[in-house]
Amino acid sequence: MYDRIKGFRDVYPPEMAAQRTVIDTVESVARRYGFREIATPALERTQVYVEKSGEEIVDELYTFTDQGGRSVALTPELTPTVARMVVEKGQAMSKPIKWFSTRPFWRYEQVQQGRFREFYQTNVDIFGSAEPEADAEILAFAHDALQALDLKQDDYTFRVSHRDILETLLVHYGEEVTVADGVRAVDKREKLERVAYLDALVEAGLDRGEARAFDETLQAADENLDVLVEETEAEAMESAVHELRAVLAAADRLGAGEACEVSLSTARGLDYYTGVVFECFDTTGDVGRAIFGGGRYDDLIESVGGPPTPAVGVAPGVMNSTLPLLLKRAGVWPEEAWTTDYYVLTVGETREEAAEIVTALRAAGNVVETDLADRGFGAQLEYADTRGAETVIIVGERDLEEGMVTVKDMASGEQVQVPYEDVPGSYERPRYEDYAVEDTS
Amino acid sequence: MYDRIKGFRDVYPPEMAAQRTVIDTVESVARRYGFREIATPALERTQVYVEKSGEEIVDELYTFTDQGGRSVALTPELTPTVARMVVEKGQAMSKPIKWFSTRPFWRYEQVQQGRFREFYQTNVDIFGSAEPEADAEILAFAHDALQALDLKQDDYTFRVSHRDILETLLVHYGEEVTVADGVRAVDKREKLERVAYLDALVEAGLDRGEARAFDETLQAADENLDVLVEETEAEAMESAVHELRAVLAAADRLGAGEACEVSLSTARGLDYYTGVVFECFDTTGDVGRAIFGGGRYDDLIESVGGPPTPAVGVAPGVMNSTLPLLLKRAGVWPEEAWTTDYYVLTVGETREEAAEIVTALRAAGNVVETDLADRGFGAQLEYADTRGAETVIIVGERDLEEGMVTVKDMASGEQVQVPYEDVPGSYERPRYEDYAVEDTS
Repeated sequence: MYDRIKGFRDVYPPEMAAQRTVIDTVESVARRYGFREIATPALERTQVYVEKSGEEIVDELYTFTDQGGRSVALTPELTPTVARMVVEKGQAMSKPIKWFSTRPFWRYEQVQQGRFREFYQTNVDIFGSAEPEADAEILAFAHDALQALDLKQDDYTFRVSHRDILETLLVHYGEEVTVADGVRAVDKREKLERVAYLDALVEAGLDRGEARAFDETLQAADENLDVLVEETEAEAMESAVHELRAVLAAADRLGAGEACEVSLSTARGLDYYTGVVFECFDTTGDVGRAIFGGGRYDDLIESVGGPPTPAVGVAPGVMNSTLPLLLKRAGVWPEEAWTTDYYVLTVGETREEAAEIVTALRAAGNVVETDLADRGFGAQLEYADTRGAETVIIVGERDLEEGMVTVKDMASGEQVQVPYEDVPGSYERPRYEDYAVEDTS
Repeated sequence: MYDRIKGFRDVYPPEMAAQRTVIDTVESVARRYGFREIATPALERTQVYVEKSGEEIVDELYTFTDQGGRSVALTPELTPTVARMVVEKGQAMSKPIKWFSTRPFWRYEQVQQGRFREFYQTNVDIFGSAEPEADAEILAFAHDALQALDLKQDDYTFRVSHRDILETLLVHYGEEVTVADGVRAVDKREKLERVAYLDALVEAGLDRGEARAFDETLQAADENLDVLVEETEAEAMESAVHELRAVLAAADRLGAGEACEVSLSTARGLDYYTGVVFECFDTTGDVGRAIFGGGRYDDLIESVGGPPTPAVGVAPGVMNSTLPLLLKRAGVWPEEAWTTDYYVLTVGETREEAAEIVTALRAAGNVVETDLADRGFGAQLEYADTRGAETVIIVGERDLEEGMVTVKDMASGEQVQVPYEDVPGSYERPRYEDYAVEDTS
């Protein structure tokens, strides 16, 4: 017997039925926002990710040399792929371009609760608008998707920040700071002890006093963004604060205002973000890591050879990820449903007549099963029960001689004899009750 | 700029909209038959495929050693994966187990029309029944799926055979024959010149006279299966012919009879098939290769360590494959649709009011877009047009002062002024006609 590969999941029914509900719900909200579906390759050149994130990313990639001698990687994220697609064909498209897709991604990471090496994301992106309305559309989509999954507003929060605020503030407090290291330190603020956090800032190039002052302003500004402009008097800061406020106002107009809170220590690790960034968190903290994140990446498409094209997106992890953990924690994980509308049970030589009923009920759109294993009455009825059949239609040889079949409601166990030609007759989805009523009238 | 990897496709809208229709249609038929969705890993151990198909399969695999030192392969097909899943958890499940899933697979093959190195299949399988009704359920599903895609019966045919017939006939004519080589020779019959085909049979161990006699019987038997039993007088042949007939009769009861024709030279290359096999072909021959295939593989689950578990399945290639070629050839490729129900156009400082309309229309399930790029009237109207908007709602600053907005039908160009609070008002999906009628009444 072969082993499944570590970090990869087999998803069986009925769990998959719940997963399907989650994915369909998120996708249907994306469609309502006018996002159009795309499909993308599972492999890209390894170089794509190295150039974007540095050589150390290779440790997290499933990468190999293919038979054509190319170094390729299983895609760990969608962004470089859609950037490539925009460069290839985006010129001829009217902007903004709005795309979504759901598919697996792969990262060679430590496996833990809600983190697997193969996970599914629904990526939702807007290309070609630098306006706050585009950021807000992404926030509103994410908010609407979570609401459609039956989460309540007090279940989750979007911690929203702006990359330039952090970077400008770091430079303001320490002229010698290495900005990327400083951003990375802030990104780990919640996970680190205070001393370790300050150490990380010092390593990034602030002295200890600067690190304390930086952090104090950062925290104060979560309550009042004006502090930032007063403190730094930097033009870049003024403009970043203005943008962040405009995005929050636009998100508010679309009903996502309550979901958003300013949280300037939210940095999003990845280097390509340029403006507003955000992460979704479980308000109870039961799910300790970010549920998903997103933000603006205005420079990426130009950096891979395209024309300047502002971009903003979000990527909820819809399967083998933290979102299912949040849905379970909040008690809104969809039912792991397992139902069949009809099981058509044959007794004796009645396959011909049973097949007629099966075919007619399926043609009307019902989920219909029948005997595939040549079993007797009891075994078939038991199977119908394990399949969650609502109604069993018993096509028996002796009944048929009198032109009758039996319609049985599996919940109540009640049953009624019905003329063969009345099943389904003029009904699209006949139930026991339909015939029982006729029976007594 | 990075290159896309050869044999991998980017699928853009609106092509993806047509692909989505195809996939949803096939899946919805699978659901009606009571198949339950599963999700499976993209990687399995390379050994899985080598043990099943021999070392030479490695040339067709994307295979590599992962960071944990395992030799792994991008899955080229689903069957070994579902066999593993049945072995792991199938014991506790009531039989027959009925599963489906749609996902990409990867094979390092020569790229040609309708053949890519990444392609999507919907795999549909039944585990735990050796009865002809199970084979017929698979055939009927495939037939119903093609009908649901608007193909007509004269567009396609299922060439149906039985593995034992071919094998028994080969042994009957040449006691020294290497059966696998003989099967492979027959599999290529249509692609080879007659001389090359007979050469291949000779290489498999028949002499030239035996090869001719074998082929003559094979052809005659397509018209009359009785020839096989008369000729060979073999018990295995009698039983295979009986099974094949029983499957065809059961398929006929489910309405798939006309789709099936006996074609004993249909071998299906893969070694794990054991009973009835079939391939779907374009009747016009315009699509030269098989559209998809399926069949019975009763030994596979036992061979990977499970209990004896008969199995039968089919796997239509729903994207980046030959099925789209057939749909296009037959003129039933779904519309590459690109529509938006509403575009809400803002003129002046009306974002607040426009957002109310956007939110209400989306909440009612409509596809709604609005300005994300801070553009003027003309540019917005043009964008609305390129997005395929049916209705444009113009929220203008001056109109709003009188409490009005404008509802414009994009097809006719007609428009009507409507009170702001009536959009959408009590409508779920208001159109120009709804308001125009009120206007004149």
